[in-house]
Amino acid sequence: MKGNCIVAQSGGPTAVINASVCGVIQEAMRHSEIEGVYAAHNGILGVLNEEIFDLRRENPETIEGLKTTPAAALGSCRYKVRKQEDFEKILKVFRKHNIRYFFYIGGNDSMDTADKVNKLAVEKGYEFRAVGVPKTIDNDLAFTDHTPGYGSVIKYLATMVMEAGRDTEALYTADTVNVIEAMGRNAGWIAAGTALARRDEEDAPHIILLPEVPFDIERFKDKVKYYLNKIKRCVIVVSEGTKNPDGSYIAEQKGEFAKDAFGHTQLGGAANYIKELVEHDIKVKARFAIPSTIQRNGIHFASKTDSEEAYTAGRKAVEHAVNGVTGKMVTLVRASGKPYKCTTGLAELSSVANGEKYFPEEWITDDGFFVTEDFFNYAVPLIQGEVKPVIKNGLPCFIRFKKHFI
Amino acid sequence: MKGNCIVAQSGGPTAVINASVCGVIQEAMRHSEIEGVYAAHNGILGVLNEEIFDLRRENPETIEGLKTTPAAALGSCRYKVRKQEDFEKILKVFRKHNIRYFFYIGGNDSMDTADKVNKLAVEKGYEFRAVGVPKTIDNDLAFTDHTPGYGSVIKYLATMVMEAGRDTEALYTADTVNVIEAMGRNAGWIAAGTALARRDEEDAPHIILLPEVPFDIERFKDKVKYYLNKIKRCVIVVSEGTKNPDGSYIAEQKGEFAKDAFGHTQLGGAANYIKELVEHDIKVKARFAIPSTIQRNGIHFASKTDSEEAYTAGRKAVEHAVNGVTGKMVTLVRASGKPYKCTTGLAELSSVANGEKYFPEEWITDDGFFVTEDFFNYAVPLIQGEVKPVIKNGLPCFIRFKKHFI
Repeated sequence: MKGNCIVAQSGGPTAVINASVCGVIQEAMRHSEIEGVYAAHNGILGVLNEEIFDLRRENPETIEGLKTTPAAALGSCRYKVRKQEDFEKILKVFRKHNIRYFFYIGGNDSMDTADKVNKLAVEKGYEFRAVGVPKTIDNDLAFTDHTPGYGSVIKYLATMVMEAGRDTEALYTADTVNVIEAMGRNAGWIAAGTALARRDEEDAPHIILLPEVPFDIERFKDKVKYYLNKIKRCVIVVSEGTKNPDGSYIAEQKGEFAKDAFGHTQLGGAANYIKELVEHDIKVKARFAIPSTIQRNGIHFASKTDSEEAYTAGRKAVEHAVNGVTGKMVTLVRASGKPYKCTTGLAELSSVANGEKYFPEEWITDDGFFVTEDFFNYAVPLIQGEVKPVIKNGLPCFIRFKKHFI
Repeated sequence: MKGNCIVAQSGGPTAVINASVCGVIQEAMRHSEIEGVYAAHNGILGVLNEEIFDLRRENPETIEGLKTTPAAALGSCRYKVRKQEDFEKILKVFRKHNIRYFFYIGGNDSMDTADKVNKLAVEKGYEFRAVGVPKTIDNDLAFTDHTPGYGSVIKYLATMVMEAGRDTEALYTADTVNVIEAMGRNAGWIAAGTALARRDEEDAPHIILLPEVPFDIERFKDKVKYYLNKIKRCVIVVSEGTKNPDGSYIAEQKGEFAKDAFGHTQLGGAANYIKELVEHDIKVKARFAIPSTIQRNGIHFASKTDSEEAYTAGRKAVEHAVNGVTGKMVTLVRASGKPYKCTTGLAELSSVANGEKYFPEEWITDDGFFVTEDFFNYAVPLIQGEVKPVIKNGLPCFIRFKKHFI
């Protein structure tokens, strides 16, 4: 089927989501079926607002540079398509620009959007193919062994924990406890990933607080005291999604901007809460760090494995679509554990949209404050190798599209 | 003069303070005058408590590994020596272990301690040499062009700002403003250093808030609005030491945002305050990040120039001491700007102890929200090259001393 294609990015950026865009573009340019190679500016908003730019007019070097540029070079959004008129508008824009291929890189919500647009196209008799590319640092998408973006966020955050851990180790006589907040609203995958920093009992992190384990203040304080007694310091990684036994977040923000566009409660005060708790109840000085969006954009120390898989997922989406696949998301399949080998598969968009992959209970240690060897076996292969952005004058170089709007 | 030497680290760790220790140890081992090569555990506390370990019993590989290990491998402290009996105890311990050479790596307080011990030794007729090695991420030591540790903290923090800046650029429709907090209680050197991330008007950071410029809420809000209007987003770097016109820290703000979960006034909350201010008064969503100690320990992306200068400063301290110098600190001297060439010099410990190097007023732009080209000329050479720690299984490897106590 001849026609134009469009690629869009959605949701929170990652260090390697642009590598997926690169895979889509470079593969699309190899197929004569695909004429125009377009980008939606700011995810699905770019389609709704008809802000579409022409990727064939960008330099090949810019496109290659996507592999070493973090965040979302096409622009992203958090707009959740719900209204029927929005879906119809999307299809109308696709028809108008003869867009026959839609590659949407994102998480559950994006797969839901792609699925519904695809179904509407079938219903309206518009020949069209929609293929999703998984993306999320949260690693909580179903039907895929892991998600592009996850390996890089844990590689970088584990490195931060190692490095800041050495600060606490050096200065425990003054700053005895350090609390580092990891992203992850619903699942502890990111916080758990910092466990990789620990090769030795002395190494940070000493305690990991996961959303999957209800926060038990007394047992937590006992664990901190155990480490203070044993190694005179304690480094704690707390997931922003850590909850009290009653299900409320340990640090819910109040105020007018406390809810995001999806009505989710905005988090961000978990580390501060744990710091205050330690100082107030254990009477030792504590510090805290909130790496926030820094953790998910660390291309200067991103996982090469993750980047390559993100690229492959983008490429495969195009390959499949050209071969007639629609209504599916590319998945990552662990073909072999040792040695690690990853291939790709396909899952139904609708199944991915409604699925969620929780952190396995059996990978949490009995005390609830760390993860097991099985998690290490799962995660270590995902952080191998380093992406090497071009460095100029001591700092990395990133690309920016010229954005010739059509 | 034959005898033993001791090296100690003090104050807040940096990515390259261990490189200075490496320089001291490797140079000390080249001189037959120096017999025992000792380390004080946790800075001057290790002398006061007679916790001294033998560096000759460590593996040469461990000592070489100091160059790629962040924080303070000997241990550090924040203990300020004030009492006469403490100085006398220090000298007594030195006498007891025939310590004739004292290398103290730190900031003003450490230079003050080294100076007073040196003077006491002279007074008591104990033949002894004390040479200081500069260290501080804050870059506020007098008599040295810059301090080891500074180049690395700004290289890493500027990279964080670049990377997180791309996140805001991608997702401005949801997260419009981002605020990143830089260390620096008294001087804006670190916050200013993030300016290097900006190669283009689009690039972050757009606004830098320095302790040297009294915070003017109205002018600040106008500046944020200017960027929102022009590029639809704004990334702000705020120094933790930013002050109100009355001299109080902005982080100490009272009022509705100022209390934490325990009802304490928020400390170290400059970024949070700016975030709340932007949301409340400008009505756009803002995020914030507090890299805290992570920023000063980033060996995985530390400046090679900084690391080599830190090493040289340690080596030179020993060379000078063996040649009879005492009561001095090694300084870094910019022999040439373009091409950058750095040599070393010496300054009086007592002068360094009482000096402070402020951020030059003439390097702040007229509007007070950025820095001038002169600052770029000063700072760019300090961030060149990257330290490359050994990577094993995807993460850096750091050394740890065996610490054979004498």
